[in-house]
Amino acid sequence: MPIATRAFAATSAKAPLEPYSFTRRDPGRDDVVIDIKFAGICHSDLHAVNNDMGNARYPLVPGHEIAGLVTAVGADVTKFKIGDRVGVGCMVDSCRVCAPCKAGEEQYCVPGFTGTYGNADKHSAQSGEAITQGGYADVIVVDQAYVLNIPDSIPLDAAAPLLCAGITTYSPLKHWNIKPGSKVAVVGLGGLGHMAVKQAVAMGAEVTVLSTSDRKKADAERMCSKHFLINSDKDAMKAAAEKFDLIINTVSATHEIASHLQLLAHDGTMVMLGLTTEALPVFAVPLLWRRRSVAGSLIGGIRETQEMLDFCAEHGLASDIEVIAPSQINEAYARLEKSDVRYRFVIDISKLDQAA
Amino acid sequence: MPIATRAFAATSAKAPLEPYSFTRRDPGRDDVVIDIKFAGICHSDLHAVNNDMGNARYPLVPGHEIAGLVTAVGADVTKFKIGDRVGVGCMVDSCRVCAPCKAGEEQYCVPGFTGTYGNADKHSAQSGEAITQGGYADVIVVDQAYVLNIPDSIPLDAAAPLLCAGITTYSPLKHWNIKPGSKVAVVGLGGLGHMAVKQAVAMGAEVTVLSTSDRKKADAERMCSKHFLINSDKDAMKAAAEKFDLIINTVSATHEIASHLQLLAHDGTMVMLGLTTEALPVFAVPLLWRRRSVAGSLIGGIRETQEMLDFCAEHGLASDIEVIAPSQINEAYARLEKSDVRYRFVIDISKLDQAA
Repeated sequence: MPIATRAFAATSAKAPLEPYSFTRRDPGRDDVVIDIKFAGICHSDLHAVNNDMGNARYPLVPGHEIAGLVTAVGADVTKFKIGDRVGVGCMVDSCRVCAPCKAGEEQYCVPGFTGTYGNADKHSAQSGEAITQGGYADVIVVDQAYVLNIPDSIPLDAAAPLLCAGITTYSPLKHWNIKPGSKVAVVGLGGLGHMAVKQAVAMGAEVTVLSTSDRKKADAERMCSKHFLINSDKDAMKAAAEKFDLIINTVSATHEIASHLQLLAHDGTMVMLGLTTEALPVFAVPLLWRRRSVAGSLIGGIRETQEMLDFCAEHGLASDIEVIAPSQINEAYARLEKSDVRYRFVIDISKLDQAA
Repeated sequence: MPIATRAFAATSAKAPLEPYSFTRRDPGRDDVVIDIKFAGICHSDLHAVNNDMGNARYPLVPGHEIAGLVTAVGADVTKFKIGDRVGVGCMVDSCRVCAPCKAGEEQYCVPGFTGTYGNADKHSAQSGEAITQGGYADVIVVDQAYVLNIPDSIPLDAAAPLLCAGITTYSPLKHWNIKPGSKVAVVGLGGLGHMAVKQAVAMGAEVTVLSTSDRKKADAERMCSKHFLINSDKDAMKAAAEKFDLIINTVSATHEIASHLQLLAHDGTMVMLGLTTEALPVFAVPLLWRRRSVAGSLIGGIRETQEMLDFCAEHGLASDIEVIAPSQINEAYARLEKSDVRYRFVIDISKLDQAA
């Protein structure tokens, strides 16, 4: 039987989010029904609600940083049981047969993965929704193959942002082989950046934070980064030339990246994680001169997301959060536009009643 | 005793090249004296003569694609003897103690390698020249550590361009692990591009040439590339989406690269080899979506240059050339500005007499 669901949705581009009711699909044999406890607010949610990519469909329930408890499982579900602490990230399905899917990199699924919200809903006949609807809601139904186990030691609220921010930073740190002694710079200490710092430190790297001001310097030190660089300090930038094996660039607004390339060592890579839509000017000479690269990386696969959650549990890592009620979502969005959050807003879904 | 040398030099930015006489240094214990037979004309020579990088010093004798015969060796020279067929590329010295130098990647020498022309001459007291002077000359004196052996099967004239163009394409093909079955695209069928095609084919790759017109299609087929794509053909570009493991971009003028990124497969890399001075606009989304990279690569180390020469000999490869007399250099430059050469001008130094 379809499940009545309460949520917050945007009904048109740039409209404030408001209470919205819809139905989740009748759970199938492989489905897990999750009572959502917390949902993180990701910068991508703003992009979607504002239709920055030009392909948004409404009403749209954002949210792909989901943490909750299992309340029912389908007949063929083997990975989860009622009461399990679970999470859902950016994907709820993929083709499962292409080379990346078979390699456990479903985020690079050739025909494209099914995003947790805003993508064509394969079960629209059952759910009544044309598009998938996300985690700013009290319940979600997800195929077990796309559900993660949240280790007991991580509080559910601080675990939620790991499902997108946490894996988005973990995956490139692993892909570019960060290990004890690696020199890593993190550009932008925000929702992604603060996780990149914590994870890189836990991997044994020497971490430097690059920021536009020293507002977050004390926080960066608390997270055990060793050095703090202000982008506009030309002398400090010059002194840091050729220092880093990897630069994790988390800034999701268009910005000057040319001077950052000079900070890369021989064979170093700057990996872009932010969904900037305008062109980033790159100069060939600094790339040639040290065989540097500019790359991109997109979230991470399901297997790697579980590995990341286990890694965070092992090292006592979680997201730094500000918990808000659903009634505060629009205010949180306005603050997020100004990067005014330390370091992730997480919606307490139990307070949906107060808003409805 | 210093060696009287006849050459062609630019006396100021954008001036036509003209006959120039100077002295090479008195050869030291580790030096090899080379009777230059042929010198290739590289696009970088134009950049230098035109002072495009803003750091040129005059008079300047260009030329870093040098092939000739050994006429004398210093007391400590063990690698070469009189009569050997040898080459000199872009470097005549480096610090020899930094990590890249020790790893045989002298091109990435931390304090910077000594370029064959236009760099401060460490032996200026002996040579009488403030800067190193290149290969548009009848003789050169080079430390044995920076001299290459040219295999007997490669004619000296067609070998000359291998010393820069040949290694500039070979090094990234090896670094990015091109092997049988790899899919490689080469942007621009010029001095570098035609060597990239030949080498990638010899490595077993399936090669596609991207060009602005079909003028060179027959040549591309003769070089055994499988496919030919015209940049402006949107349907063909769309059909080739996500196809290539590596794109070798040899274009040394500023150009549109965003649409090329779409051609890269998951984890694919576009490597820039051209010394473009203006910003290249790169979009983050296509990088993120398939974990693609834009990288740069600079010539190659001495050991790898020897490996490349041996590889070319083994596979019967050399550069396609147009041999010219020194008196035709300025005309050749004008044609090179219009990419009107198939595929490398090589100066026959034996005809210096006619020009002087």
